[in-house]
Amino acid sequence: MSYNTFGHLFRVTTFGESHGPALGCVVDGCPPLIPLEAAEIQAELDRRRPGQSRFTTQRQEPDQVKILSGVFTDERTGKQVTTGTPIALLIENVDQRSKDYSEIKNSYRPGHADFTYDVKYGIRDYRGGGRSSARETAARVAAGAIARKVLPGVTIRGALVQMGPHAIERGNWDWNEVARNPFFCPDAKAAAFYEEYLDGLRKDGSSIGAVIEVVAEGVPAGLGAPIYGKLDSDLAAALMSINAVKGVEIGDGFAAAALRGEENADEMRPGNQGAPTFLSNHAGGILGGISTGQPVVCRFAVKPTSSILTPRSSVTRSGAEAEVMTKGRHDPCVGIRAVPVGEAMVACVLADHFLRHRGQVGESAAWPFKA
Amino acid sequence: MSYNTFGHLFRVTTFGESHGPALGCVVDGCPPLIPLEAAEIQAELDRRRPGQSRFTTQRQEPDQVKILSGVFTDERTGKQVTTGTPIALLIENVDQRSKDYSEIKNSYRPGHADFTYDVKYGIRDYRGGGRSSARETAARVAAGAIARKVLPGVTIRGALVQMGPHAIERGNWDWNEVARNPFFCPDAKAAAFYEEYLDGLRKDGSSIGAVIEVVAEGVPAGLGAPIYGKLDSDLAAALMSINAVKGVEIGDGFAAAALRGEENADEMRPGNQGAPTFLSNHAGGILGGISTGQPVVCRFAVKPTSSILTPRSSVTRSGAEAEVMTKGRHDPCVGIRAVPVGEAMVACVLADHFLRHRGQVGESAAWPFKA
Amino acid sequence: MSYNTFGHLFRVTTFGESHGPALGCVVDGCPPLIPLEAAEIQAELDRRRPGQSRFTTQRQEPDQVKILSGVFTDERTGKQVTTGTPIALLIENVDQRSKDYSEIKNSYRPGHADFTYDVKYGIRDYRGGGRSSARETAARVAAGAIARKVLPGVTIRGALVQMGPHAIERGNWDWNEVARNPFFCPDAKAAAFYEEYLDGLRKDGSSIGAVIEVVAEGVPAGLGAPIYGKLDSDLAAALMSINAVKGVEIGDGFAAAALRGEENADEMRPGNQGAPTFLSNHAGGILGGISTGQPVVCRFAVKPTSSILTPRSSVTRSGAEAEVMTKGRHDPCVGIRAVPVGEAMVACVLADHFLRHRGQVGESAAWPFKA
Amino acid sequence: MSYNTFGHLFRVTTFGESHGPALGCVVDGCPPLIPLEAAEIQAELDRRRPGQSRFTTQRQEPDQVKILSGVFTDERTGKQVTTGTPIALLIENVDQRSKDYSEIKNSYRPGHADFTYDVKYGIRDYRGGGRSSARETAARVAAGAIARKVLPGVTIRGALVQMGPHAIERGNWDWNEVARNPFFCPDAKAAAFYEEYLDGLRKDGSSIGAVIEVVAEGVPAGLGAPIYGKLDSDLAAALMSINAVKGVEIGDGFAAAALRGEENADEMRPGNQGAPTFLSNHAGGILGGISTGQPVVCRFAVKPTSSILTPRSSVTRSGAEAEVMTKGRHDPCVGIRAVPVGEAMVACVLADHFLRHRGQVGESAAWPFKA
Repeated sequence: MSYNTFGHLFRVTTFGESHGPALGCVVDGCPPLIPLEAAEIQAELDRRRPGQSRFTTQRQEPDQVKILSGVFTDERTGKQVTTGTPIALLIENVDQRSKDYSEIKNSYRPGHADFTYDVKYGIRDYRGGGRSSARETAARVAAGAIARKVLPGVTIRGALVQMGPHAIERGNWDWNEVARNPFFCPDAKAAAFYEEYLDGLRKDGSSIGAVIEVVAEGVPAGLGAPIYGKLDSDLAAALMSINAVKGVEIGDGFAAAALRGEENADEMRPGNQGAPTFLSNHAGGILGGISTGQPVVCRFAVKPTSSILTPRSSVTRSGAEAEVMTKGRHDPCVGIRAVPVGEAMVACVLADHFLRHRGQVGESAAWPFKA
Repeated sequence: MSYNTFGHLFRVTTFGESHGPALGCVVDGCPPLIPLEAAEIQAELDRRRPGQSRFTTQRQEPDQVKILSGVFTDERTGKQVTTGTPIALLIENVDQRSKDYSEIKNSYRPGHADFTYDVKYGIRDYRGGGRSSARETAARVAAGAIARKVLPGVTIRGALVQMGPHAIERGNWDWNEVARNPFFCPDAKAAAFYEEYLDGLRKDGSSIGAVIEVVAEGVPAGLGAPIYGKLDSDLAAALMSINAVKGVEIGDGFAAAALRGEENADEMRPGNQGAPTFLSNHAGGILGGISTGQPVVCRFAVKPTSSILTPRSSVTRSGAEAEVMTKGRHDPCVGIRAVPVGEAMVACVLADHFLRHRGQVGESAAWPFKA
Repeated sequence: MSYNTFGHLFRVTTFGESHGPALGCVVDGCPPLIPLEAAEIQAELDRRRPGQSRFTTQRQEPDQVKILSGVFTDERTGKQVTTGTPIALLIENVDQRSKDYSEIKNSYRPGHADFTYDVKYGIRDYRGGGRSSARETAARVAAGAIARKVLPGVTIRGALVQMGPHAIERGNWDWNEVARNPFFCPDAKAAAFYEEYLDGLRKDGSSIGAVIEVVAEGVPAGLGAPIYGKLDSDLAAALMSINAVKGVEIGDGFAAAALRGEENADEMRPGNQGAPTFLSNHAGGILGGISTGQPVVCRFAVKPTSSILTPRSSVTRSGAEAEVMTKGRHDPCVGIRAVPVGEAMVACVLADHFLRHRGQVGESAAWPFKA
Repeated sequence: MSYNTFGHLFRVTTFGESHGPALGCVVDGCPPLIPLEAAEIQAELDRRRPGQSRFTTQRQEPDQVKILSGVFTDERTGKQVTTGTPIALLIENVDQRSKDYSEIKNSYRPGHADFTYDVKYGIRDYRGGGRSSARETAARVAAGAIARKVLPGVTIRGALVQMGPHAIERGNWDWNEVARNPFFCPDAKAAAFYEEYLDGLRKDGSSIGAVIEVVAEGVPAGLGAPIYGKLDSDLAAALMSINAVKGVEIGDGFAAAALRGEENADEMRPGNQGAPTFLSNHAGGILGGISTGQPVVCRFAVKPTSSILTPRSSVTRSGAEAEVMTKGRHDPCVGIRAVPVGEAMVACVLADHFLRHRGQVGESAAWPFKA
């Protein structure tokens, strides 16, 4: 079962509400003897942290992570390492602004989970969206930082490739650019445009959607398994579970529907150590649910932030008419901070599949490819 | 764990290779006392069955299903009903044409899972693609027929809405049309076009991709659960696990990335029994991972059939150069027969979530919505 | 998968080491709208808390529990209730006595998990046994307190029924007596004997085993499921997972091996509402893995505490000879404090099966029996 | 979830009723390239097959197993091997004697699952006990035959060590004797006694319980995991899930309750390759839920067959009084044929834990112990 847990051999269970005392996660199944410091997790959290530019919410949350369990000093090296037991991470909420929740308490904000939580459970923690808040993704990013360490030689990077209807220019792609602008955008020219564009939307009290791409390089061939343990199937679930995501693609994605067989097939040539070299990567690094050794490429679409200043029609809990407009601190484009979250989810899925593969098939075949 | 099983309370485990003696599935967790005849399952299988038009593979497989367990006669009604114990379904393979597999045996067909199975397991049943063949989806359709019966009042229908770059005209949508053409296409005009279009591709020895849409009506509000048991997350995994699928969308999907917050928010008005009436359905019937009571709408993109007559560059198992062209019986557009498969997966996911919701929350809240 | 998680619909994930900063658990799947205060959990924790008599470890741990998530005020009643989202519980470690661990660090204590953790993971947190310490069971007791609230009308009580070779007199059984002596013993006379007996063992620097019985009354007929979801199978797993447990029995247990069919069969007579009245309960309330409506009765055997003052032969991490004696604070009979832990495990298993049953079969059949 | 599935990385799903068309299982997660012939599975099934002596049921079931999937010829060796895909096994029921079920249909046999299946599901396949029949264990034995092949160097053997109140003489233990008598008894003298003893019980129309011991030798140190993935916890669940089992012990089991700490601790001495040599095995090869490298020893108690000729009081489905006596073909001591079933369950649990360990920790540490 999986309400608040994902993964199988690398399992992450998250907990916490937006305005409760704390949020966090338990990472179970992490292999032992992996060096791990809180600072490494903190570095990833800092990338997702709110309040770092005028384009994200102004809520001030330091998102300081504490490791509560699962690590110990390895006396041979003096380093803190994982022990194989569950790693619990805790992030205390600090800036739970005491405000008037009377509007959100009794009315359902369109596009939000207010109505569905209420209809399902008969109650909800309405403060800041409670459990449905994207604040939960801080726990994912923390878990993802551990997942990365399980995957030596794998590089997982994400980028915002479209804001509103405006896609980046693929030819301008520069990974170094991603850290230089507040949008995680690999196209400097597009980033400059987004700055102006998003300022306009902010002033309108509006919001906008986005598309994120995550690329994992160095993934060995052989991860994933038929039929309901496919790597792409698990990636789709993981990315679709991120707040506000409405679509997921692997490789060419929906564009593949328009291709002919000759165009879509990734041809091969003899390569190193008997492994084939692929001449293209329409498949996004996955065939039959199993990694090919090429970069794993996935994209996901994020809808515009539902919290906007424009009043929208809605209903109250008791079924009366209402108008809702959401004041307060919100990201005008939640897609931006979804970039490190997407990376974290991909890292967790790959770590899980790496361990599952090693379990079923053993090490010899798994890492790296051997002819 | 989930290699060949999906679902939690409604669990489906499939087995079988394309050219082995049989394939089938075990459906575990089906509630008791549901009337179930093999003929009902057969009706769904017949919709997916190959060889029904010139636009699908000419392999002649009757796909006759046998129920091996889990049903018994209810003496009160004289009807065969489920007993709550696992329902095993068996479909024997009949038309395993004895042919020369020497080419496929030693070379990797581009776009197929030949290479990845081999690199993962060190062996593969190459006959017809073995376990990676879309023939496995017959078992899914059989399971889906049972899932539908778990969901009274829910109607799940699929349609092909794009072939190659050619999308249907939404205004022409007629569900009755779907059964009248060999493409499961709801737009009569588009269907006529596809006939000619696909004939041309067939003559070229080529193939083409497609987009499928599945709509579930009558789904009660409240199915799905935060955070890793979201309904959309499970739908994404289920649809992405279908052979050749490269993208999944819920509601507006990728188009939502281009919307502003005001455009995307589905406004509400007071409706019946205290439940809100939504004025639009950009969300595709799911908010915060939980169903809203609106129709659940999802789409998936299917890549073109990888088996084509045009020779493609590849490598052999021993790492030498090779050219591969796939003769034999193949669907020029695998997207067509993916329509009943998509419906089946949606049915299984909804049945699972219905039982999970009933478990956690109980019946009162679940079915139907009560204020 | 289940390394540090148990249960399916009522899922408990625990974390934490004996001498780390904190331990705790995440309870996922708890139904919503159940009144829950930290004080209720605390009351159960206080029963297991160390240092309450001279017969348990003198480590002073207040075991104060904090609820970090999953509860909210129900405005209709003003009470704090569960919300259906994960409930995280935190217990900080307070009395981590800074001591010299040099002996335990490099040598394997016989009967402990020192060697096995090291051989498995290549590292272990040796302070107080780390993750293998019975301190982890505090988290189970906390989770069990929540599980009890999921089960209205069910009473779950445990008792120590044997210490060393000395079994209680069944005829003296008085549930009220359990809270009156430091052994959770329902036989006042036996309790008096145990006091003297255990004092003698303590003075010897020795320890002793015990047998615990847990009885759940009010369990409705119908919980549990064939074949690998049997109620007794899950109880066996849950009880065997408690530290130091070496045997589990349901109903007559091993004594059933000596019975003839006529003696063992629990005869039935017509009872209320069409439900049968059983004339005996050799089965311990479970037939075919499913509850009968009679009290569920189980027992488990706890080995003597492995930490003793008598020196034992062992080896060091580097494979040299060593003698180990364990000074410090230890329970001379770990079986005593295993009583509330056993109750908690039974409560968690029953809560899980109640939700699973309700999911598959629905409410009508489940609670209570209806003809 | 686990209704009819057990295991995680080595997963077994069984299906089928006693008098349905067939029973069988799907084994998912078996590593690839393991030589596997139906004859190997058949050999194990033949040990459990009914009708082989006058001390088991006279039902004539050849229990011929067919492999439906998951194997293929390895061209390098010409041998049939596993492919890593699910292995489906089918056993058709042959001797479903058409008889009058009117008594069993409407009345609940004491000690059987008749009542509990009915109260849970509202219907049951009453023919021969349906799904609750021990006939289901044929599928377990078949799966166990595959599990054994996953565990090179491990020997798993079972023996009947007690029938009724009569335990064997431990000093007489001879593994070779087990195959020489119809009781799987390692003590020739006891076997001779049991023959006479059981003949007497048969003539009385009675039945008797038994205790079975299973020993796994060659199990490497390191299998199992804290806290809810303990090897002993999973063994307890697996053995308790066998029909008619009421108790499970690991190592000294309940006898450990009577021991003092000095007696129970298994002392160690330096051994080969840095691994310790244990001087005793009270622990049954498991400490802290993880294997020590010593033989894994477990026992389980089987209650007497509930089907007896002596009339017992019961009730009908409609709640009226009834007397039930079970004519027909039954094992007077179901414990006998439980021996190969117990072995199979132990094999499946060990295979699962071997793969899980290899997944989390990798091969270097797992097999065999390395200092």
